[in-house]
Amino acid sequence: MSSVSPPRSASRTSPGSNPVYLEDIPRHEAQERLRQALIAADLWKVLGSEVIPLDENAVGRVTATPIWARISSPHYHAAAMDGFAVRSEATIGALPAAPIIIVTRAADSSRNAEFAQYVDTGDPLPSWADAVVPIENVEPLDGHGLPAAEVRVPAAVRIRAPVPPWSHVRTMGEDIVATQLVLPAGRVLRPIDLGAIAAAGHDSLVVARKPCVAIIPTGSELAPVGSPPGPGGIVEYNSIVLAAQINSMGGVATRFPIIQDDLELISGAVARAAQDHDLVLLNAGSSAGAEDFSSTVVSELGSLLVHGVAVRPGHPVILGLLRSDPAGRHPARPIIGVPGYPVSAALTIEIFVEPLLAQWLGRNTWIPHMEQVELTRKITSPSGDEDYVRVAVGRVGGRLLAAPLAGGAGVITSLVQADGIVIIPPGIQGIEAGERVPVRLYRTKADLDQTIFCIGSHDVALDLLAQRLARSGRRFVSANVGSQGGLIALRRQHAHLAGCHLLDPRSAEYNVPFVRQYLPNIPVKVFALALRDQGLIVRSGNPKGLSRIEDLARPDVVYVNRQRGAGTRVLLDHHLSRLGILPDSIRGYNHEEYTHLAVAAAVAGNRADCGLGIAAAASALDLEFVPLFKERYDLVMTRECAESDLLAPLIALLGGGELRDEVARLPGYDVSVMGTVVLED
Amino acid sequence: MSSVSPPRSASRTSPGSNPVYLEDIPRHEAQERLRQALIAADLWKVLGSEVIPLDENAVGRVTATPIWARISSPHYHAAAMDGFAVRSEATIGALPAAPIIIVTRAADSSRNAEFAQYVDTGDPLPSWADAVVPIENVEPLDGHGLPAAEVRVPAAVRIRAPVPPWSHVRTMGEDIVATQLVLPAGRVLRPIDLGAIAAAGHDSLVVARKPCVAIIPTGSELAPVGSPPGPGGIVEYNSIVLAAQINSMGGVATRFPIIQDDLELISGAVARAAQDHDLVLLNAGSSAGAEDFSSTVVSELGSLLVHGVAVRPGHPVILGLLRSDPAGRHPARPIIGVPGYPVSAALTIEIFVEPLLAQWLGRNTWIPHMEQVELTRKITSPSGDEDYVRVAVGRVGGRLLAAPLAGGAGVITSLVQADGIVIIPPGIQGIEAGERVPVRLYRTKADLDQTIFCIGSHDVALDLLAQRLARSGRRFVSANVGSQGGLIALRRQHAHLAGCHLLDPRSAEYNVPFVRQYLPNIPVKVFALALRDQGLIVRSGNPKGLSRIEDLARPDVVYVNRQRGAGTRVLLDHHLSRLGILPDSIRGYNHEEYTHLAVAAAVAGNRADCGLGIAAAASALDLEFVPLFKERYDLVMTRECAESDLLAPLIALLGGGELRDEVARLPGYDVSVMGTVVLED
Repeated sequence: MSSVSPPRSASRTSPGSNPVYLEDIPRHEAQERLRQALIAADLWKVLGSEVIPLDENAVGRVTATPIWARISSPHYHAAAMDGFAVRSEATIGALPAAPIIIVTRAADSSRNAEFAQYVDTGDPLPSWADAVVPIENVEPLDGHGLPAAEVRVPAAVRIRAPVPPWSHVRTMGEDIVATQLVLPAGRVLRPIDLGAIAAAGHDSLVVARKPCVAIIPTGSELAPVGSPPGPGGIVEYNSIVLAAQINSMGGVATRFPIIQDDLELISGAVARAAQDHDLVLLNAGSSAGAEDFSSTVVSELGSLLVHGVAVRPGHPVILGLLRSDPAGRHPARPIIGVPGYPVSAALTIEIFVEPLLAQWLGRNTWIPHMEQVELTRKITSPSGDEDYVRVAVGRVGGRLLAAPLAGGAGVITSLVQADGIVIIPPGIQGIEAGERVPVRLYRTKADLDQTIFCIGSHDVALDLLAQRLARSGRRFVSANVGSQGGLIALRRQHAHLAGCHLLDPRSAEYNVPFVRQYLPNIPVKVFALALRDQGLIVRSGNPKGLSRIEDLARPDVVYVNRQRGAGTRVLLDHHLSRLGILPDSIRGYNHEEYTHLAVAAAVAGNRADCGLGIAAAASALDLEFVPLFKERYDLVMTRECAESDLLAPLIALLGGGELRDEVARLPGYDVSVMGTVVLED
Repeated sequence: MSSVSPPRSASRTSPGSNPVYLEDIPRHEAQERLRQALIAADLWKVLGSEVIPLDENAVGRVTATPIWARISSPHYHAAAMDGFAVRSEATIGALPAAPIIIVTRAADSSRNAEFAQYVDTGDPLPSWADAVVPIENVEPLDGHGLPAAEVRVPAAVRIRAPVPPWSHVRTMGEDIVATQLVLPAGRVLRPIDLGAIAAAGHDSLVVARKPCVAIIPTGSELAPVGSPPGPGGIVEYNSIVLAAQINSMGGVATRFPIIQDDLELISGAVARAAQDHDLVLLNAGSSAGAEDFSSTVVSELGSLLVHGVAVRPGHPVILGLLRSDPAGRHPARPIIGVPGYPVSAALTIEIFVEPLLAQWLGRNTWIPHMEQVELTRKITSPSGDEDYVRVAVGRVGGRLLAAPLAGGAGVITSLVQADGIVIIPPGIQGIEAGERVPVRLYRTKADLDQTIFCIGSHDVALDLLAQRLARSGRRFVSANVGSQGGLIALRRQHAHLAGCHLLDPRSAEYNVPFVRQYLPNIPVKVFALALRDQGLIVRSGNPKGLSRIEDLARPDVVYVNRQRGAGTRVLLDHHLSRLGILPDSIRGYNHEEYTHLAVAAAVAGNRADCGLGIAAAASALDLEFVPLFKERYDLVMTRECAESDLLAPLIALLGGGELRDEVARLPGYDVSVMGTVVLED
């Protein structure tokens, strides 16, 4: 697995050979420089406000002024139940054995007579009344003192208990009293808030104007989504992610067309964007490489405040302030050079843009939901950087665990799969497995409680399982560390289950001997998932004519290996040893990949001629497959987990027909064993 | 304070005098009846899907199919840093003291020659290369072996260390391998997800169709927002809240015009709505009062599944299924009669509509964020109901506390101010203060950590304080239980501070003797907020000519009192005792309100002729004020709280000029003492 780190250097040269310095400014200092520049430009404040009608579209807007009640709610005394309005004094002395009869009248404002009048819930109380007798507590009578046919319009009502004053009445102002504070300024409006604003007598409200943000993608290698990129081309999708982030933060994003790597063109686009946008985001071109024009553009059109922040990913960020228009058409505008790697880009928005939008909208900045988690494996971090490590998070045996996700700033799936971020402060070089650290959660704890943590060997069938489990409300998170790594994780209670296909050379038995070895004193349950072919993944037509393990030692053959501990690696080493082939004699033996698909990709990408793996991976990439062995892939779990509610849908899927049919359609799979309990103790 | 409970009865009569039975079905059984009816009608499934373009507007949509990668990402080997592409073998043996020089070429596909070629980050690797030497690790040379002027196009580069194969290269498929599962079906799309979908080669995606929901407000008393309601009229805002809820849950709401209480009109509107909406919500008219037509309409147009659920608020909910159109123009449609009280209405959407929309969208239902909290006061609950008690939540001294909010189903502010809901299961009649109960949180724990909990006496200046604190990122939550209640809450560590204006009759001193009495062994700090006038709140023109406490005992005067423990109540009782006036001689002495504004509202609403209170409350409702006494209103807190970060902005506000100026503008306030430390020990 190749390691990727964002460009870092103390000094580089720009296109014009001018030296460009990528700094290492601490994050908080960079934020503070931007803040100070905006304060100086009188831009660190709510940008403006507007009046909008009070309707459902006001949700998510931010109140720009406090909202005081214009009227009370209710603005009259209202019946709180269906029944008869009365003067409470008229009921004094009523007893079950000595009822009081009160005659009715349709409507009257006389205060002296003792009357009863039917009211529905919500009706205004007649001015002479001060209480309601619920309809179930009266006996409606007709003119003859007999039960009335029409209970709403009887001639009189018989009451057998007194009612206290103001009972079953919603008194004026019970909910809201005119002039009281209904909502403060800076409130992000929720649905229910709109009701309270309406109840307080408003039909419009003053909200903060949405900040307008221009997103300018730059790069000659970029192709818009929908236009297939040529060789070396890249689909431009950062602007979509950035726009969606901006909109979800309360701004309104404009995506500009892609600009080629040309100083004039970029400079022109930035100048145009500054006309009518509060913030300009220039995507990519923010590091210090040959085609990185951002810093030059910022310096020419304004002032470069920061170039390079000690965060990872996200290091080559640019913060600047564009000059106000000399003709006075627009004020100074902040500009941010957003790094090109997708993870860096997204985190730059969270770190630098969200607090700015919060300020402009007058709302609180997003406060991340923090929890303490236990790391499942060691993290190393280059010292000096504040390191944003993406982690998968799940709860196993009551402990909240975080598994660091592989991949650098260019691996967008590391952020897609991330349940949270562990931030390693600058100066700390790493954190050991088992240490407890704070994590910023992207998910609710309730989500995490539905998470099944699978650590071990990867299999394509796990993707199908994940898909089916999602329908049962379970999140299936799998971290691929190989079969042995999975058993170790299980022993450490770092996972709910482990995928495993380990051949024991002595017994020629799969998995069970290793489960006994790694989990000696823990009651476990092992389910077979499938039998699958292991073989050589080769290019179409098998150009090197590979047919057996011995061929790997041929000098013209480049192999791609799996990592130590992977079942496929154990299988290879077993056969090499059996055949007396030295690993050193195999070219590429030290080139390790972590998944079957990664091995197939290495073959498809011409980095190797072949790799040992499964048929599904070969077929996925239109490669050819030379079957050599059949192996059993099992799911290993503690008995406690096997009997838990959390895993119940998974166990049910193993026993049912749907998953079986779907896995059977994968090439090289035999599902006859699926759901068989291989070991239980 | 009047107590409000939703209409409840075993049997009522409908407009046509037909008896209507309001049932008491447990919530889960009601949900299950609806589910079973929808399963039978083949409507318990994802309603449909549609293809949408992949852009920022896809955020929040729900994937209707799994998304598998069409291409790998990167789809070629890409330089991971700016530098020179080389064959790694060409660098073997390079040492600081024994560098290797490699000549450059612009572009070449020869695999035999040893070349170096400049590449920017993201550029495709030349096919002959398998590694990148970062630019900072090479010395670019000109044709004479001297440092090159143009570092990108040197004649050669000098390298002083070997590079391993594939270093500083993002290998093909490093992020995404073609055919792998990128996202499962049922995923609510976040911004970053869109990037991964684009990276996997898609330019459109299949998402669940948004369920269409018709919202029909009914009620002759209703006036739309913007049209001032007449006497007895009510502003119709439930439809706005409901529409906003539906939209935030992934549906698309249509608000119908208000329909009068007329069976024909309502029936016609429901039939029209059923044509092109997946769900019909009929708001109000769901209880069993005289003008409640909903159950009749549902019975006539389809089948009534449930009428009355044992939840509070929300009891009179109706669940039904409208028949499919006989001409086949539409299938059966669920209909929900949503109760009219705003809190009931909003909770009905959360309880019955959200899970339905989740099913129709194929996403997980919202799982509430639960935390354990400690109740600050006893809750009583009618047995048999599942009771949804709105609570304010804050953290005091490390404990998460929940203060039940006053108000029934009609009090929308109880939901606006709610930080969460404590659900009391049916059969439990109450929960004692101090007990730990689970709460469904509407706020993040981070929000709660910024919450200042003030329990005690109410003052209008606290609203101004709340408004200012919001700008400092603090939520100021005040529960009004009177001055003594506040000190008791402080002793129990149920609040960060208490507002207090208690006169000690013996010493004629304000607050301090009571603080010493109630908080004997706790180091406290007491800040003066203001001196304020206490006096009689009377109607405009003071029609009864009230000028002194003795007037309250006049037989023609109706008084409105404050609750026991309130500073104003203590003040009254002190003067009554001093003057030898018996409470029994004052009409309305037992009519208790909990705030100054509520007292003023009682006077404005003609429920009383006068009440003791503050000038600000009188002025707020255009009433007259007869000043009688001057009292000091203090803020009491433990020293620990006074020195905490949480309260620092509050302390700063007390010492600054902004709050002082604002409070000084309130009638009857003297701010000369604001911020003075009255007691510190």
